Amino acid sequence: MKKQVNRQILLIKRPVGLPDDSCFKLTISEILDPAYGQLLLHTKFLSVDPYMRGRMNDRKSYVPPFQLNKVLNGSIVAEVIESKSNSFAKGDFVVGNLPWQDYSITGEKQVRKINPELAPVSTALGVLGMTGLTAYFGLLDIGQPQKNETVVVSGAAGAVGMIVGQIAKINGCHVVGIAGSDIKIKYLIEKLGFDSAVNYKTNTDLRKSLNEACPNGIDIYFDNVGGIISDTVLSLINKYARIPLCGQISLYNETLIPLGPRIQPVLLTNCALMKGFLVYNYEDRFDEGISHLADWLKTKKLKYAENIVEGLENAPKAFIGLFAGENIGKQIVKIS
Amino acid sequence: MKKQVNRQILLIKRPVGLPDDSCFKLTISEILDPAYGQLLLHTKFLSVDPYMRGRMNDRKSYVPPFQLNKVLNGSIVAEVIESKSNSFAKGDFVVGNLPWQDYSITGEKQVRKINPELAPVSTALGVLGMTGLTAYFGLLDIGQPQKNETVVVSGAAGAVGMIVGQIAKINGCHVVGIAGSDIKIKYLIEKLGFDSAVNYKTNTDLRKSLNEACPNGIDIYFDNVGGIISDTVLSLINKYARIPLCGQISLYNETLIPLGPRIQPVLLTNCALMKGFLVYNYEDRFDEGISHLADWLKTKKLKYAENIVEGLENAPKAFIGLFAGENIGKQIVKIS
Repeated sequence: MKKQVNRQILLIKRPVGLPDDSCFKLTISEILDPAYGQLLLHTKFLSVDPYMRGRMNDRKSYVPPFQLNKVLNGSIVAEVIESKSNSFAKGDFVVGNLPWQDYSITGEKQVRKINPELAPVSTALGVLGMTGLTAYFGLLDIGQPQKNETVVVSGAAGAVGMIVGQIAKINGCHVVGIAGSDIKIKYLIEKLGFDSAVNYKTNTDLRKSLNEACPNGIDIYFDNVGGIISDTVLSLINKYARIPLCGQISLYNETLIPLGPRIQPVLLTNCALMKGFLVYNYEDRFDEGISHLADWLKTKKLKYAENIVEGLENAPKAFIGLFAGENIGKQIVKIS
Repeated sequence: MKKQVNRQILLIKRPVGLPDDSCFKLTISEILDPAYGQLLLHTKFLSVDPYMRGRMNDRKSYVPPFQLNKVLNGSIVAEVIESKSNSFAKGDFVVGNLPWQDYSITGEKQVRKINPELAPVSTALGVLGMTGLTAYFGLLDIGQPQKNETVVVSGAAGAVGMIVGQIAKINGCHVVGIAGSDIKIKYLIEKLGFDSAVNYKTNTDLRKSLNEACPNGIDIYFDNVGGIISDTVLSLINKYARIPLCGQISLYNETLIPLGPRIQPVLLTNCALMKGFLVYNYEDRFDEGISHLADWLKTKKLKYAENIVEGLENAPKAFIGLFAGENIGKQIVKIS
């Protein structure tokens, strides 16, 4: 089972604007033996997420920047192949923030055991992991959806957005998604039960279409994208609207601070709340979130989608692909 | 006591940009007799407030626009000169939203009785009225100041700002004001006990000065002004910062939607909260607020300032003067 080759993906150049292949490099290193209390893990699934773009810049953010010429790291599902910890056994599956490589040594506190009976283990990176929990806490804790309210979610066919919309439906809301292809629009309405969805790429008057899709205005705007789409949504919010700020993917590759219409007057006039958050703000409530999400999966109230690319060597390409916005659901790399 | 002449101030033209005298007109009308349950009031003090600028535009906002060729209205302190209500007696002082005229008829539910023993009755328009309560609820409910946190307030020498800073001091915070003249800066530090204050008009590097005045970053930014000042403050906020949005006076006379750097990335990165509010959101807690503010006045923990202009005919001028930002504290018009 244990191989002698440990492939790794390094960040070798900080991207300016959209990242490309030249920023990454595949190398090979040794596999070490676990010490007492440690685990040797074999990487099975690796998560690529938009927030990682921020870590590729050399500036202060909510997580420290990636270091140049070091292995990248992110959320990973791995199998324990050797355990020197009493808390884990060979064959257990775990999830944690780990290096982008085939084999890793980790401390027992650095990973969380996955219950493989709940759902396929890859869901620990998506609906039962960071993106599902992001949707759960952002919508429920900041958005506070009430029955019959209108919820608009941007990046609606993404890993977070699709869960937001479905939890809003579970809470009795009128749900409108914004996404970037007709295939996504069809998927949101027909497969996930969104009340309406708008293709921002082909729509010639987004404001008018949203206005029609939201006859009672917008009470919650779950913002995954930022930029012009968000400007348009904000122009339609109701009094006491809540705006969980989850992502700003439209701006992550901007090299200058982007300008836009000032939003404070809109928030003031509507007594609206806008709040940025990270899923880690809710770490002490993850069990609650996973338990609800798993229940909804089991009772078929919640669906999820994964887009799986094969091969560690393709992880950079999968990451870059996030910004083209072509895929539905959680982008995952399966390590062969 | 009762005169036969009832002067009134009408809005006769919607301003474009900064209002001027030609938007207003003084006329004369009759004085009616109160019906059962009504009061005849003699106006004593009239409040001019920046938010009224928004009501002069013909567009939807949190309060309906003023009507053209009708009497303006706003917060007023008046004396009851004839009462046909069991709840009020001749000689009582009341506060309420009333027309800009010498004499008014009002229903008994439309006004609130003032306790003249707490402080001069004019304070019902300021520190013990709308502006004091705005400071109280915006800072305490949205800002949630904790001991040793840093609070920055813009428009710091204004009716709301000066109370915000002092309540923040009462709560053990490090308080920094932003204001527009050296007289104001001196007043904030020497009379009101602000830890520091910055003159945004003469300062050549506001960011650097704020950075020096806030060695531990900024935890709460109470925003009365918006625009470039707020852009600068936002660039210095700490993780989990709270930003009560109270006013955007720098933008009220803009005729186009102003552009500025997009703020969502800053809020997201810092898990910060921004919330617009109106004092009327807290109407059911006004008694609590007034009681605390009056206690602080009595124990000299809280000071206030009024800038009084004499004569109903000068109310438009006093209103226009708000945007020049020359005065310290609450701008009031005393009706002679």
